[in-house]
Amino acid sequence: MFQINENYLKLQGSYLFSSIAAKIRAYTELHPDKKIIRLGIGDVTLPLAPAVISALHDAVDEMAVQETFHGYAPDLGYEFLRSAICTNDFRSRGADITVDEIFISDGAKSDSGNIGDIFSVNNRVAICDPVYPVYLDSNVMDGRAGDYVPETERYSRVIYMPCTEYNGFVPDLPKEQPDMIYLCFPNNPTGMTISKADLQKWVDYAREVGAVIIYDAAYEAYITEKGVAHTIYECDGAKECAIELRSFSKNAGFTGTRLGYTVVPKQLKCGDVSLNALWARRHGTKFNGTAYIVQRAGEAVYSEAGKKETAAQVAYYMRNASYIRTSLLDAGYTVYGGVNAPYIWLKTPHGMTSWEFFDYLLEGANVVGTPGSGFGPSGEGFFRLTAFGSYENTKEAVERICRM
Amino acid sequence: MFQINENYLKLQGSYLFSSIAAKIRAYTELHPDKKIIRLGIGDVTLPLAPAVISALHDAVDEMAVQETFHGYAPDLGYEFLRSAICTNDFRSRGADITVDEIFISDGAKSDSGNIGDIFSVNNRVAICDPVYPVYLDSNVMDGRAGDYVPETERYSRVIYMPCTEYNGFVPDLPKEQPDMIYLCFPNNPTGMTISKADLQKWVDYAREVGAVIIYDAAYEAYITEKGVAHTIYECDGAKECAIELRSFSKNAGFTGTRLGYTVVPKQLKCGDVSLNALWARRHGTKFNGTAYIVQRAGEAVYSEAGKKETAAQVAYYMRNASYIRTSLLDAGYTVYGGVNAPYIWLKTPHGMTSWEFFDYLLEGANVVGTPGSGFGPSGEGFFRLTAFGSYENTKEAVERICRM
Repeated sequence: MFQINENYLKLQGSYLFSSIAAKIRAYTELHPDKKIIRLGIGDVTLPLAPAVISALHDAVDEMAVQETFHGYAPDLGYEFLRSAICTNDFRSRGADITVDEIFISDGAKSDSGNIGDIFSVNNRVAICDPVYPVYLDSNVMDGRAGDYVPETERYSRVIYMPCTEYNGFVPDLPKEQPDMIYLCFPNNPTGMTISKADLQKWVDYAREVGAVIIYDAAYEAYITEKGVAHTIYECDGAKECAIELRSFSKNAGFTGTRLGYTVVPKQLKCGDVSLNALWARRHGTKFNGTAYIVQRAGEAVYSEAGKKETAAQVAYYMRNASYIRTSLLDAGYTVYGGVNAPYIWLKTPHGMTSWEFFDYLLEGANVVGTPGSGFGPSGEGFFRLTAFGSYENTKEAVERICRM
Repeated sequence: MFQINENYLKLQGSYLFSSIAAKIRAYTELHPDKKIIRLGIGDVTLPLAPAVISALHDAVDEMAVQETFHGYAPDLGYEFLRSAICTNDFRSRGADITVDEIFISDGAKSDSGNIGDIFSVNNRVAICDPVYPVYLDSNVMDGRAGDYVPETERYSRVIYMPCTEYNGFVPDLPKEQPDMIYLCFPNNPTGMTISKADLQKWVDYAREVGAVIIYDAAYEAYITEKGVAHTIYECDGAKECAIELRSFSKNAGFTGTRLGYTVVPKQLKCGDVSLNALWARRHGTKFNGTAYIVQRAGEAVYSEAGKKETAAQVAYYMRNASYIRTSLLDAGYTVYGGVNAPYIWLKTPHGMTSWEFFDYLLEGANVVGTPGSGFGPSGEGFFRLTAFGSYENTKEAVERICRM
């Protein structure tokens, strides 16, 4: 009799955002007249930039004609896109990344879920707490997490790195030695980030203990302050210890268009084995490339018009972030994030739990956010609001919250 | 120090089609003047159907306007596409599949590579020999294959089911008991298929021994003969033992557009655990949906115009298949396939090995095919030609081969 992957049975509850969606559905069925404003899931709302739309139409037209039709894409992505990425996201930052270290994918969620494939299930994993659930859940599925211990709300083999008010939401170096370290800056969910100097300490630490850093830089476009690295490869030695995950979802609104990439430097090795070659092998075997039209859309993000238009989108969302942040501060809330990231991390008032505050907001203001405890035990007592709504909705939502 | 997934080191050589591409590159560099005709990789050449192009343009226009913009897709796919699939691919065949058993993805290669995720690494896997390399390689990566034994050219824990002239390229029930059985009909690479009555025997066998069948029906649109099942769910009891993989690549030319789906029936269980729920959990955690515009393109395949236009594409390729088949038969080759599939499986002449024949064809006729041995040891002495070229190129390629 066939057996399943028993690790799946160790997962706790369903994927966070599926649970929230279910709660909203239930509320909406009871109160069909209420106008719910969603500042929960990090989904963008502005339409694709004109330069991207134009590139998509052009690419679709190419697909309509035999001479310009495109079948299977190159395994690792089209040269035109990889090369635009290389120039704009790395060379321009002084990071010495080459085209063949860039792997085009259908998005950072797939990549962050799949990257575990090339690593031993015996590796010890360190994650921030709170954390983007995919890092934890995918490691539970892969069998690296150990068993869930209800008393501690933690998995036995995972090294949790608390990110709290006490450390300014920047994790301390772990006491137990990890093999794989997941970092995300600017951070989801806290909206806080790390200075380049502090990130360098992580790179140095990883090299010292022989750990690999899985660095999620999906929100780098939202960095407004100086002294913050846009890519981990701005740090010395990062090419020997870090994989970087990147997304087109937040900087260019591709959540529903699906495009991302992963950087696996050739210097990153385990003994003689190049991780670049392993990831190439995974890509070649369990993936068949990203749609040509979508890769052309990605290329357009790096055109002069595309850069301007997507920067304006980011600025639009950051105006929301700033509005949420200052209004809630004025209303007496304790608020973090929203300066280098589109996320606001607020402390729930009156000692409410995160889910209590979720219900309080849903019922009292018809506003949906994300309970901090959904991101890990150290997120308890916090709540995430995103800046990805329209300005009008964001303003209305914040006004409703402040009136409560 | 972090460790890699050591199973990757057990993989033999690189992915077959990457090796072939390297050989062609080397030849082209030496002979830049030669016109190579590629009947190797199964990549389509006709442009996307007008109905699909029109749906893509419309969907792109929706993405340009805030009111009709689409962010994250539902985890498992849009209802409009799942419901078109359900009606057209299953209900119309008398197969009782429901919308919530259909999972939209970026293609059957991803799904066939990722499906192992939800199964125990201890399961014994049975594959046909020759076989589409992804079934084997992904199981090697997952750790189900055991060690490679050079003397036998086989992995120690894999149950190989030879498909040869002696059994008409339809595998016999295995002697050792498998937990997971990969079947693909119409078959890649042999181009042969199985009758519905014979497929029913596999379903009965799987239920008897408690195995799950991973059924790849990517080529079902090419079936021309009666008595051949278009989906395994035409067989009684298949919902209790089979997962089906489907693709838009070959029936609608989506190789470069990326769309597929997997059917995991709710009756399919391991003890109390529903595989449908496990796959939903994997989709929700390690995948973030398929692009909206691509799902709209998929929906258009099921429109009246789309059905007509894609059927004409399939007919075009089948004319090629028929031309290759009859011409090579006339020239004295022993030829299989090409009746219910776009693949021709020919016996190499004069006792040549498959790779010898590859070189012979590349150098003597500037035609690229795929060596049968690349699909498994029982493929030795055979060679695959695909019908996905243009009619003109196909004709020229076959004439060149017949002249040799």
